[in-house]
Amino acid sequence: MDIQNIGFIGLGLMGGSLSIALRELGNSYHFIGLDHNAEHAQKALQLGLVDEIVEDLDAISHCDVIFLSVPVDGIISIAQQFGSLKETCTLIDLGSTKEKISNSIPSEIRANFVTAHPMTGTEKFGPSAAVSHLYKNRVVVLCDMEKSGKHQQKVAKTLFTAIGMNLVYMDAKEHDRHAAYISHMPHALSYALANSVMKQEAKESILALAGGGFKDMSRIAKSSPNMWEDIFRQNKPNLLEAINTFQYELKKCQNMIEKEEWEALNAWMKDANSLHDIL
Amino acid sequence: MDIQNIGFIGLGLMGGSLSIALRELGNSYHFIGLDHNAEHAQKALQLGLVDEIVEDLDAISHCDVIFLSVPVDGIISIAQQFGSLKETCTLIDLGSTKEKISNSIPSEIRANFVTAHPMTGTEKFGPSAAVSHLYKNRVVVLCDMEKSGKHQQKVAKTLFTAIGMNLVYMDAKEHDRHAAYISHMPHALSYALANSVMKQEAKESILALAGGGFKDMSRIAKSSPNMWEDIFRQNKPNLLEAINTFQYELKKCQNMIEKEEWEALNAWMKDANSLHDIL
Repeated sequence: MDIQNIGFIGLGLMGGSLSIALRELGNSYHFIGLDHNAEHAQKALQLGLVDEIVEDLDAISHCDVIFLSVPVDGIISIAQQFGSLKETCTLIDLGSTKEKISNSIPSEIRANFVTAHPMTGTEKFGPSAAVSHLYKNRVVVLCDMEKSGKHQQKVAKTLFTAIGMNLVYMDAKEHDRHAAYISHMPHALSYALANSVMKQEAKESILALAGGGFKDMSRIAKSSPNMWEDIFRQNKPNLLEAINTFQYELKKCQNMIEKEEWEALNAWMKDANSLHDIL
Repeated sequence: MDIQNIGFIGLGLMGGSLSIALRELGNSYHFIGLDHNAEHAQKALQLGLVDEIVEDLDAISHCDVIFLSVPVDGIISIAQQFGSLKETCTLIDLGSTKEKISNSIPSEIRANFVTAHPMTGTEKFGPSAAVSHLYKNRVVVLCDMEKSGKHQQKVAKTLFTAIGMNLVYMDAKEHDRHAAYISHMPHALSYALANSVMKQEAKESILALAGGGFKDMSRIAKSSPNMWEDIFRQNKPNLLEAINTFQYELKKCQNMIEKEEWEALNAWMKDANSLHDIL
C-alpha cells in the first residue's frame, strides 16, 4: 500500500482536521488541496493544512487518495466529473448522507470509491476550525463496502484506523435512516430550541439563567445553515420520520403533564434513563 | 457576620457539592446534616460532607445558616415545621421552582428565608455525586429578595459570591417562567429524544453512530425521574407553555422540510445561530 500524494477536495472543518490527523502519523505525505472558496484555499495553505493548492480536478486526480469533504450535492456532482482514475486511486467521500451518493457514482469509478461517514464534527466550520483530535475515538461508518475495490477497502480501513477511528459497516440505506435519528433530527431539535427562546420578549433575562443542560442542548444550533440545509434536503423522508417519532414522544410527555399522570411520567423518564445503559 | 454552624437538609448532589465548596473556603465551619434517607446520611458523613448527622429539625434549627436542598414539596413542608427561628438564622432553599415556595413560607420566618436557585447540576444524584466545582462560575437566581431580612440578604450574597457564583435577582413568578424555557422544557426534550431512539427496533445500531451532538442532547435524559417529576409538577403551566412554543418551532421546521422551502429553512437556522451572539 503505497501512499504518497493525498488530495483534499473541500478544506473546511472536516477536510482540514483530517489533514492534521494524517500529518501527525509522521509519514511524508504530500497534501494537495482544492476548494471553490479561494479564501478557504489560501487560509488552508497558510495554516499548513495542505502543501499546495490546485484549481481543478485534473490537477488532483493523480493522487493516491482523494478525500471529498464538501456538501452531498457537491460530492455527487464531482463524482460525475472524474473521467477514469488509475486502478490504485482511492476516492473517499465524507458526506453526511450516503444512499444518494452511493447510487450515483459512475460505474467506471465505483471500485475507486469508498463512501464513509465519520460521526464527528463541531458546530464550527471553515479551515480555521480544524483541530487534530476531531476523528480520534469516533465512529466512522463505511457504507456499501462490497462495491469498493479490495485495494480501496484496505486503504480506507488502514487510514481511518491509523487516526484512531472505530469502523462500523452498514448499507447506505440503513445508514441514512439511523443518521436521521442520531444526528439529523437532534439538529432540528436544537435549532427549534434556540428559536423557541429567541422568540421570547425576555430572551436576555432567560438566557442569563442558562446552565450546562441548556448550553449542551443548544450547542449544535450554532451549526452551519448551509451544511444542514443540504443534509435535511438529502435525507428528507428519514428526517421527517424521525421528527414524527420525536413529536409523538413529546406529545405523550405533554399529555401526562396536562392530565397530571405523574406515575406514568416518572416511568417514561425511567425508560429514557435506560438509554445510558447502552450508550 | 458570624457564621459557625451550617446545616444541610438534603445531602444529595446539590447539598453535598455546596458543603465541599464551603469547606474549601477554609473557615472553620461546623457542618450538620439531615436527610430522611439514612443511607445518604451515612454516606455523607463517611465522605466528610458533614461533621455530624442529626435526626430532626430541632437539632438543626440552632444553626446560623441552613440550606434546604430537597424537592420543592419537601421544602414547603419543612418550612411549615420550623417554629420561630433566631433572628440571625438564615434559611436558604435551593428549589428548582420558586413561586410556590416563596408564597408558602410562614410569615414568622419569612425574613429568615432566602429563596435561591443555583442554575447548575449534573445528571448524577446522591451524596457520592457531589463535586467541588458545581457552583463555580454559575448563576444563582435570588428571588423576591425584598422579603428577606437585611442580615439574611447579606449572608446569602456573601456565601454564594464566596463560592464563585454570579448573582441574578428576579421575582419568583418571572423566575419560574424563565426556568421553564431554559431548563425544564429542555429536560422534557432530552427525555423525549432518548425515548424516540429507545423505541426503535434497531436502537443498538443507531446508538453505535452516536457522536458528540447526540451525547450532549441526551445527557440530561439521565437525570433523576423523581426530581424531575417534582419539578414538572411544580411548574406545570409554565412548562406546558414552553413545550407549546417549542412544538410550534419544530412544526415550522417540519413544514419547511415537507414543502421543500429550503431558503426559508436556511433563514430559520440562521435565526437559531444568533442565540450564540447573546449566550
